[in-house]
Amino acid sequence: MSRIVDLAQPHVAQLHAYTPGLQPTDAGWIKLNTNECPYAPSPRVADAIIAELHDQGAALRLYPNPKSTPLRKVIARHHGLHEENVCVGNGSDDILNLLVRLFAGKTPTGVTFPSYSLYPVLVSIQAGRTEMIEFDRTMTLPVEKIVASTAPIFFLTSPNAPTGVGFSNRQIEEILKRYHGVLVVDEAYAPFARYNAVELLAKYPRLVVVRTLSKAYALAGIRVGYALASPEVIDLLDRVRDSYNVNRLSQVAAIAALQDEGYYTGIVEKLKDTRDYYVGEWGAKFGWFVYPSESNFIFIEPKNTKGETGSAVAKELYDFLCSKRILVRYFPSHALTASFLRISVGTDDEMLTVNETFELWRKNATQP
Amino acid sequence: MSRIVDLAQPHVAQLHAYTPGLQPTDAGWIKLNTNECPYAPSPRVADAIIAELHDQGAALRLYPNPKSTPLRKVIARHHGLHEENVCVGNGSDDILNLLVRLFAGKTPTGVTFPSYSLYPVLVSIQAGRTEMIEFDRTMTLPVEKIVASTAPIFFLTSPNAPTGVGFSNRQIEEILKRYHGVLVVDEAYAPFARYNAVELLAKYPRLVVVRTLSKAYALAGIRVGYALASPEVIDLLDRVRDSYNVNRLSQVAAIAALQDEGYYTGIVEKLKDTRDYYVGEWGAKFGWFVYPSESNFIFIEPKNTKGETGSAVAKELYDFLCSKRILVRYFPSHALTASFLRISVGTDDEMLTVNETFELWRKNATQP
Repeated sequence: MSRIVDLAQPHVAQLHAYTPGLQPTDAGWIKLNTNECPYAPSPRVADAIIAELHDQGAALRLYPNPKSTPLRKVIARHHGLHEENVCVGNGSDDILNLLVRLFAGKTPTGVTFPSYSLYPVLVSIQAGRTEMIEFDRTMTLPVEKIVASTAPIFFLTSPNAPTGVGFSNRQIEEILKRYHGVLVVDEAYAPFARYNAVELLAKYPRLVVVRTLSKAYALAGIRVGYALASPEVIDLLDRVRDSYNVNRLSQVAAIAALQDEGYYTGIVEKLKDTRDYYVGEWGAKFGWFVYPSESNFIFIEPKNTKGETGSAVAKELYDFLCSKRILVRYFPSHALTASFLRISVGTDDEMLTVNETFELWRKNATQP
Repeated sequence: MSRIVDLAQPHVAQLHAYTPGLQPTDAGWIKLNTNECPYAPSPRVADAIIAELHDQGAALRLYPNPKSTPLRKVIARHHGLHEENVCVGNGSDDILNLLVRLFAGKTPTGVTFPSYSLYPVLVSIQAGRTEMIEFDRTMTLPVEKIVASTAPIFFLTSPNAPTGVGFSNRQIEEILKRYHGVLVVDEAYAPFARYNAVELLAKYPRLVVVRTLSKAYALAGIRVGYALASPEVIDLLDRVRDSYNVNRLSQVAAIAALQDEGYYTGIVEKLKDTRDYYVGEWGAKFGWFVYPSESNFIFIEPKNTKGETGSAVAKELYDFLCSKRILVRYFPSHALTASFLRISVGTDDEMLTVNETFELWRKNATQP
């Protein structure tokens, strides 16, 4: 009897599932590892969900709107675009996966390093190869290398993860003018940034902007993300999308959130203030290297009491934080990231605790 | 400038999106076209969703459990299996898609005709080919042809759609004993049937049973389906599954539903009674040919006043029903299905109206 994996496509034997950030199920953790929003979503979200539950005409027994049409309309209006420019996914990961399925074939798929580590996983599920363009330590966008890429599709995260560094529209436009393929600008963190690429959509039909409600809208639990693009790209996405990919409750929740702009502007401004304060504290006061962040996280290179940096130092602080039940993210697999920790911006209380724990560690009190 | 579709994989140019059943947005329709449950889900479902909304420790701002672990446990217990035998999808369509991605490659994928029309669509998205084994008019399971298939995976719907005909475990086991590949038994309608294949899982590691909460659990709106299989198959599914494919609210909704067995037993028994009554009425009293249904729908071949059957007759009745704002499903593309209509079993009132409309049409009152 052959093994079941031998019946699968040849590349499946080599696949490993993407490792998401830890989601601890026990209480008491300060959870700053997956860039969730520390504040609750708009109260209108729960109201909309409860109204949908009690709407006898549109109960849970019925399939959702297959195209999420009312939500597409709200998203389009939110960005000053048309319904034909929008496709909604079961999280932005769904959209990224559909893009890979459309464009990743025998030719390689373009990605940068560092960047969102899901892209290469999605490409490997598709039995494809990635063409990896590395940043250098300055994290300056390698425009010329991307322009020269022969990949039919290129995934760029802006602001980038896990560095938090944002890229200007001048740089993005330089790529769009000269790169031959589809440029995906994954703007998961754009609400925290100075720039976003939405205005470039009017000029560049090969641009796809991807957004999520998981970060700035405090709705990671409902799984809604979307693509903004030319009608031609949206039509292709709809060809490979599951007909009922977004459930009823998530559709109404997303609509309610997008319609409460005032609430979210407040949260985003608060998070940016908190972020900028601690970038200052840890950068200037501690003398730790930190990239300028345009996201809701801080990518920081800790220094121990001897003034050393490096992957052992980052690991030591990661473990120390864990021992105090503070969960952050550590990316040991590459020299560009291994000496850093990524800390999602939390509430004032959470950040105070992180700061105190840093102080404690710097005093070499590494034993809890 | 090349067209964007020219940058996509070659097969994408030929793709067409799956056409789901109509989901009318205006009120007043008797909607019997997509096999939804006409009764509301268990009231515990709304309670569980509201509790989750108000649980500050597990709010919507946080990502869901990546493996839907608590739900996997409840599903396993429900079927007398282990957590390692369960994978949860964003609807059973998600599971079917993952199976196609794992096993559909250059070799063809086995399907029957008629059957759930999504399988060939999923295979075409994967740039694969289907090996189609046709039923004959008796709708007897073509066991020998399936056994002889060289496809690495074979999709079988039992009870079948759109016929409603169920297959016995003796027949399924005969296939499992001799077919070399992975046999997927899509049991979307099994709660309405006499048999199901779950007990065969203990003996056959190449069997995958797929279930959904969209039909018998009256929860099409939340998108939850699952696979039951050997740990080896579940491991493969998890390699290609999106990390957060099932949102928070759907996870708790599904758990609440599966834990209210008494409520759903009542609904399923009621639907089976209604179904059997109208199979009798239309089969015996009208003299229309109807397949024995083990599902929550009735596949019936209408006869006009001249005693004629055929696709024109079925279309005439379909249009007549539409004119009375009754929506059913019509499958004109193949001789085996074109002379039939598929009618989801509705409430007593809905079925009375359908029955009266049939009577009206039979009296040749085809003008509303």
